[in-house]
Amino acid sequence: MTWNTTGLDELPVYEKLMKLARNPFDLTAPGALSPERISNYKASAAGFDLLYSTQRLDDSVVNGLQQLADQSGAVDQFLAMKRGAVMNRIEGHASENRQVLHTACRDIFSDTPYNSEATQQARQQLEKLKVFLEQLDSGEIANERGEAFTEYVNIGIGGSDLGPRALYLALSAYAQKNRRVHFISNVDPDDGAAVLQNLDLARTLVGVVSKSGSTLETLTNEEVARAAFAAAGLNPRDHFVAVTGQGSPMDDPQKYLRSFYMFDSIGGRYSATSMVGAVMLGFGLGYDAFIEILRGANEMDRAAEKRDIRNNPALLLAVLGIWNHNFLGHQTVAVLPYSQGLLRFPAHLQQCDMESNGKSVNRKGEKVLHKTGPIVWGEPGTNGQHAFYQLLHQGTTVVPAEFIGFRHGQYTMDLEIEGTTSQQKLIANLLAQSLALASGRKDENPNRLFAGNRPSSILLADKLEPHTMGGLLALYEAKIVLQGFIWNINSFDQEGVQLGKVLAGRFLEHMRIVHQGGARDTDKHPQSWAMLEAAGILPED
Amino acid sequence: MTWNTTGLDELPVYEKLMKLARNPFDLTAPGALSPERISNYKASAAGFDLLYSTQRLDDSVVNGLQQLADQSGAVDQFLAMKRGAVMNRIEGHASENRQVLHTACRDIFSDTPYNSEATQQARQQLEKLKVFLEQLDSGEIANERGEAFTEYVNIGIGGSDLGPRALYLALSAYAQKNRRVHFISNVDPDDGAAVLQNLDLARTLVGVVSKSGSTLETLTNEEVARAAFAAAGLNPRDHFVAVTGQGSPMDDPQKYLRSFYMFDSIGGRYSATSMVGAVMLGFGLGYDAFIEILRGANEMDRAAEKRDIRNNPALLLAVLGIWNHNFLGHQTVAVLPYSQGLLRFPAHLQQCDMESNGKSVNRKGEKVLHKTGPIVWGEPGTNGQHAFYQLLHQGTTVVPAEFIGFRHGQYTMDLEIEGTTSQQKLIANLLAQSLALASGRKDENPNRLFAGNRPSSILLADKLEPHTMGGLLALYEAKIVLQGFIWNINSFDQEGVQLGKVLAGRFLEHMRIVHQGGARDTDKHPQSWAMLEAAGILPED
Repeated sequence: MTWNTTGLDELPVYEKLMKLARNPFDLTAPGALSPERISNYKASAAGFDLLYSTQRLDDSVVNGLQQLADQSGAVDQFLAMKRGAVMNRIEGHASENRQVLHTACRDIFSDTPYNSEATQQARQQLEKLKVFLEQLDSGEIANERGEAFTEYVNIGIGGSDLGPRALYLALSAYAQKNRRVHFISNVDPDDGAAVLQNLDLARTLVGVVSKSGSTLETLTNEEVARAAFAAAGLNPRDHFVAVTGQGSPMDDPQKYLRSFYMFDSIGGRYSATSMVGAVMLGFGLGYDAFIEILRGANEMDRAAEKRDIRNNPALLLAVLGIWNHNFLGHQTVAVLPYSQGLLRFPAHLQQCDMESNGKSVNRKGEKVLHKTGPIVWGEPGTNGQHAFYQLLHQGTTVVPAEFIGFRHGQYTMDLEIEGTTSQQKLIANLLAQSLALASGRKDENPNRLFAGNRPSSILLADKLEPHTMGGLLALYEAKIVLQGFIWNINSFDQEGVQLGKVLAGRFLEHMRIVHQGGARDTDKHPQSWAMLEAAGILPED
Repeated sequence: MTWNTTGLDELPVYEKLMKLARNPFDLTAPGALSPERISNYKASAAGFDLLYSTQRLDDSVVNGLQQLADQSGAVDQFLAMKRGAVMNRIEGHASENRQVLHTACRDIFSDTPYNSEATQQARQQLEKLKVFLEQLDSGEIANERGEAFTEYVNIGIGGSDLGPRALYLALSAYAQKNRRVHFISNVDPDDGAAVLQNLDLARTLVGVVSKSGSTLETLTNEEVARAAFAAAGLNPRDHFVAVTGQGSPMDDPQKYLRSFYMFDSIGGRYSATSMVGAVMLGFGLGYDAFIEILRGANEMDRAAEKRDIRNNPALLLAVLGIWNHNFLGHQTVAVLPYSQGLLRFPAHLQQCDMESNGKSVNRKGEKVLHKTGPIVWGEPGTNGQHAFYQLLHQGTTVVPAEFIGFRHGQYTMDLEIEGTTSQQKLIANLLAQSLALASGRKDENPNRLFAGNRPSSILLADKLEPHTMGGLLALYEAKIVLQGFIWNINSFDQEGVQLGKVLAGRFLEHMRIVHQGGARDTDKHPQSWAMLEAAGILPED
């Protein structure tokens, strides 16, 4: 390995930053938030501006954070990742031992991609998708009655749901005419039932997404959906599309109209720009719109290579997050998009960030002695202002905020009321919240006092379009992996989900025993039997 | 005032609990999670069971928490609130000085309600609603062409959106035939545009919800909607319904088909069972279903009066939250419903909890010296398992979890696959997660080790129906106000949202000046002008 595997707390700059954190910049001091500061503390790239004057730092901290980035070799590791290094591993222990190549999915615009093999795979799948979408458009592929498909149901969970769904909702303003996309994810049977009961199944395509072809929720929901098609007298084979690993149990032309492939080097939570997102988004928004998403993501992937944090919004967002989390001690970060289209983007980030960086062991298999990934949460503004912002302004816990905004709306339906448009009201509220959190306000009434010094940053772009959405997705993906590199953790595995799976299997085994009237092995598994009993799940004997 | 206004840290039991918290119960010790413990640590009332054996406490802590409830007089304050005490106040300072009577909305089943005046108001409004809904059903009220209304658009924000929306989504499985409800909340013009463009406005009712009749977002969206109706050649007056304070600017028969009233004693975030939720839910689910919601809520309001925490799930949940937050030091709580219908219930709780208890000043106007409300977040399981549960199991920050589950699904569309139904898989996963978080697992591979001792509780009911939903809503409302009483804070105001409003007005004023070519007062407001400039919102000079 050529990259650094020193922990955050072993880097030379760590002590310096710890010392600076004892007395962080006071945003409430007179003149502190000066016009110069506001204009200087701004990093721009790939169509995005990151404003960070409302963070609790000054130039000495910014310089320290630059050293943090440099000393950790974060950008070198990012480049190594893109070239195909085996970043998904734990030294000296059994681990996934994989490359991490989601960036290759969008590295298709250059003749010299970072990893030509992975990009070649991506191009092949895109070509296959292009043909499929053209066949849908031309009517070459149609339903039993020769009608075009108008509905698409995406069955997947986790990375096969959250990222793709966030992207579709963000861009549904640009959906193709007579094309609608729906989502089933939860094993809760009510999820599938609510979606399927309202659809004209004859005109519906179903995309089933699972790399392993063995995800419990997805296979269960697929069976439920297939049963609904069969009950409607339709042959599922003519309606179902697979997105899966080549050679998986789902890679079966007898069962699917088409199979599109995902590869081991692309983790689920980073897979939105692979076929996982492509097939659904291509159907809903069109092939060209999907390529624009890739183009925006690729631009940001390139911008995230810059070593100067002042010119690299992704890297800057990464080190600002570490400043707030590890040095100022704030456990959570609120992602607050002032854009209704981004309503599920925080849910995607919850997976992408918390599944990547919610780790306690470094890449050498040692317990880390500092905090790793924060808790990520958030809702769109201005809705959140009427919900939880009370706590952000006056609660006893400080929550660093990441505002996201756009200068223009997606639709043209906007009215000028009292001299300003709704879009202006939206952006005015975004800026006002950042300023209010930072500067606070004195008041003789203690209940109307705002302490201020609550850090935030503002990420801005012109308009939420496919290109921008690709950039925003890639910016956060880069932020997350760069933080993981600095913390020296493996951001690409998810061993923490295994125990729950094992225990769920045990509870299901108990249920089967009861169902079949077998003998209860309460001696062997006293806890799980007792929990079933206490929960009132078992029938009375 | 007859209730205690002593702070948490001044209560006699505080030191005892602090001492107990230094060495909390070890859930990973052999035999710790015994069948006896699992069966004994269960509190039941009003159709709900709260299982709490997987919290880090033993009998001495439970007894201490009982003393905490007793010494704070939480239940006495809850009773005083229901009777009409002026709980919404800060002693010696200007404050809202109001009663808190949301419980009166559902105290309609008794001849001797706690507060007869408020209950009388609620009954009058319900009677008016009943007549209106009957007129819609019979066709006495119809559109210009004599057709029935099939769509309802709820325009509101915060409490006029989140609670009602969460309830509707939770119960949409039982929606009336040919009735659909839609929501517009955000001032983002894309929110309204996305909803309105897909509706047959001729068959659409619009409910505008604002107590003051002056909420910026709501009035703006109302104007946008009225313009859309006018553009479609429809008279908004025949389609628009107002839910507002009596005598507000919106209480105007010239502009609305009907006005339903909300009262000052009901705060927005507690208003889902007032007309704020009633009109929309009555349209969508029917009047009788809404009354069932009230019946379930009322049952829980009564159950929440019990002084024994072992028989009062709401009070127990309140003190467990305080144990985890104030004594064990966990800053957040994850609400994890294993029910797709509850997908927006955590968002409602974010408002209800964080706007109520995100405070730094006690009811005497003094700065509190302990933590108040936690950060509340969450998503439905099993989806969350494939998203952020990695951090819950192996992250460096411990997140107490509140699981919510139901023994039966809402729809009948369920299949037995590999010997169990989807509903069984769902509940098995819920129980498995709680057990996994608590007990952990040893492993030679440090990356596959689960430390355990991560606290959770499980709230269970039979089925998510109107009655249960009312109970669940009231349970959490009670939890939140009981915590506020113990922290000795005012859970009913929201002064923390004011500064943002003031500053948003300033930014809008700047935009108007630019729009009209006026002189920029940058000397007076250097920060806000500089932020507009840095954000690239101002046109180039």
